[in-house]
Amino acid sequence: MSEGKTFRVLAIGGSLRKGSYNRCVINALPELAPANVEIVIGPSFGDFPLYDSDLQAEGFPAPVRAMGDAIRAADGVVIVTPEYNYSVPGYLKNGLDWISRLPDTPFFGKPVALQSAAMSMLGGARAQYHLRQILVFLDVLVFNKPEVFITFAQNKIDAEGRLHDQQTRDFITQQLTGFAAFMDRVGDTKKGA
Amino acid sequence: MSEGKTFRVLAIGGSLRKGSYNRCVINALPELAPANVEIVIGPSFGDFPLYDSDLQAEGFPAPVRAMGDAIRAADGVVIVTPEYNYSVPGYLKNGLDWISRLPDTPFFGKPVALQSAAMSMLGGARAQYHLRQILVFLDVLVFNKPEVFITFAQNKIDAEGRLHDQQTRDFITQQLTGFAAFMDRVGDTKKGA
Amino acid sequence: MSEGKTFRVLAIGGSLRKGSYNRCVINALPELAPANVEIVIGPSFGDFPLYDSDLQAEGFPAPVRAMGDAIRAADGVVIVTPEYNYSVPGYLKNGLDWISRLPDTPFFGKPVALQSAAMSMLGGARAQYHLRQILVFLDVLVFNKPEVFITFAQNKIDAEGRLHDQQTRDFITQQLTGFAAFMDRVGDTKKGA
Amino acid sequence: MSEGKTFRVLAIGGSLRKGSYNRCVINALPELAPANVEIVIGPSFGDFPLYDSDLQAEGFPAPVRAMGDAIRAADGVVIVTPEYNYSVPGYLKNGLDWISRLPDTPFFGKPVALQSAAMSMLGGARAQYHLRQILVFLDVLVFNKPEVFITFAQNKIDAEGRLHDQQTRDFITQQLTGFAAFMDRVGDTKKGA
Repeated sequence: MSEGKTFRVLAIGGSLRKGSYNRCVINALPELAPANVEIVIGPSFGDFPLYDSDLQAEGFPAPVRAMGDAIRAADGVVIVTPEYNYSVPGYLKNGLDWISRLPDTPFFGKPVALQSAAMSMLGGARAQYHLRQILVFLDVLVFNKPEVFITFAQNKIDAEGRLHDQQTRDFITQQLTGFAAFMDRVGDTKKGA
Repeated sequence: MSEGKTFRVLAIGGSLRKGSYNRCVINALPELAPANVEIVIGPSFGDFPLYDSDLQAEGFPAPVRAMGDAIRAADGVVIVTPEYNYSVPGYLKNGLDWISRLPDTPFFGKPVALQSAAMSMLGGARAQYHLRQILVFLDVLVFNKPEVFITFAQNKIDAEGRLHDQQTRDFITQQLTGFAAFMDRVGDTKKGA
Repeated sequence: MSEGKTFRVLAIGGSLRKGSYNRCVINALPELAPANVEIVIGPSFGDFPLYDSDLQAEGFPAPVRAMGDAIRAADGVVIVTPEYNYSVPGYLKNGLDWISRLPDTPFFGKPVALQSAAMSMLGGARAQYHLRQILVFLDVLVFNKPEVFITFAQNKIDAEGRLHDQQTRDFITQQLTGFAAFMDRVGDTKKGA
Repeated sequence: MSEGKTFRVLAIGGSLRKGSYNRCVINALPELAPANVEIVIGPSFGDFPLYDSDLQAEGFPAPVRAMGDAIRAADGVVIVTPEYNYSVPGYLKNGLDWISRLPDTPFFGKPVALQSAAMSMLGGARAQYHLRQILVFLDVLVFNKPEVFITFAQNKIDAEGRLHDQQTRDFITQQLTGFAAFMDRVGDTKKGA
């Protein structure tokens, strides 16, 4: 591990509703990250229009450009997502569809870790495996293990939106610690190229 | 096969841009359908807002209700979709996320066939397999084979948007013929319930 | 539902080791099935050689032919499987690879339900979704919901191999009841053809 | 790129029949590899028994141990596989099921590239995406792009088993060149740990 290096990690995803469990997880990341990981909470995918190449021809919308800038500035990205209908939510996929068209492909070669929270027993696993396939196209380096699937999220996040379940908190810290080692190992394609 | 029965099949999907290859495929379906299949070209997913349960709490938007009505009125549905980033496009997933919340779940038990057109050699296959998993949640009966993957669509659709490739045309007719037999076999859960 | 009809359902899968949790689930099915479902416990995939088309050219091995006969004789099939390495076990896939080459494709059009038991929190879900894609090729009609994922199987099956967890027992009965209605709805392609 | 470094890459997979297209691809790799990649053609999965933890308790069979040794000795691995029934062949999955139980997990952190050849238009893509999910469990670093899907392999490999299609040959060289850069980037977890 590189001594003294701090990794800047962008956290994006969540769901669009107020009080989203996945938004609560994102909000907990700064206090759960190890000392060598600085969490930057990113913008929302909620202001993106539906992807349409005719619209793109008029220029990339400002929220798309802002998200691209945020990704470019990060050493790695954590995507925290709910599962809708056994896959990634439409708004997240729509966001990735826009980002993938940005001319300098900000996700290319970037290390990415995945987390999901769901009220069900599978904790969003189906969304994560679809996301892994999507990220092959984007040539992202997805961190493997440990995987963070937060099952029965309603029992682990309180009415104030605080992720209080200690086992989950420890597990997230463990993943981010492993992710820092992974970022240190694989570096950044863009900088290396 | 039930003698004299005609199956009303809703065709939805496409992409949002003008001149979309998948929109061209949808437009070709009425002339490619066998005599016992009547194709109804459905509304677009392009006017749906991004799914947000807070927004849903204010009432389902009119385009969502219209799509639900169209699905309910059909004996079966054909979803024709491009592939974006190795999966279904965000706007289609967003559309399904809305439809899945409608109180009477219009897709439940409905027979569905899939088609995809892409400029690449895989013809949208990755989108279709993700879609199949999504449709398990919606308890849809997805038709198996033949599968319609239109590869190198740019060579099969002309500048006027006409699907001119005869092999592809025949293949679509073959799928819709099989789909009619499938609808005849499995009937309609709702009517049967 | 057809009055008085009994559905003959073949149960196959398990793992090859003695005391396999999935074997225990198979053994519990006869007592958990509703009155209109008769469970027939099928042969093992453990005596199949590794698939090799040169070997096939010498004739299908006896265990392959026996499995094909058992599938043909059934109105539907329940596959009960562990998950190995985030997918179906090699021996089960190998078994399906052999069965798929039998000249009359015994699985074609057959209704199939899936169950899995695992010591982990995901209960074999990843194996089931891969299996669903495999079964598209075989043109199987896979039952959708409810899905049976038996998580933390070590807490639900005792040292004598008895599935004692009442919630899991009820859930399996609920699935088999739905599966009977599904078989009644979709019938049998072969008989209908 | 590290100057003067040569990467030792193990090529495994193929199918068990004589004259397998995927075996022909493996045989072509030494002449298609760039100067800094040395291809070592690995042992077969064909002599592995079906995985059974009772059997494992008696000790790992010799072919399993030999495969583990070959993986350990390599800087990276290329898996070349056919697609059977829309997924990986049973014998390959069975091989990975055995390898995954070896006490020192030889695949852990290893860079891996995938290739597939098939007589169909999808070129084995479905097998590769299932394999990618399997390799998450094994904590393998799978190379993303370019992906090698050899479609209609019967037109690209002659009766003597020679891969003669120049475009395919060039594409494989391109992938192996990218894979060398990937190995150089990510290094080897074991050595680094």
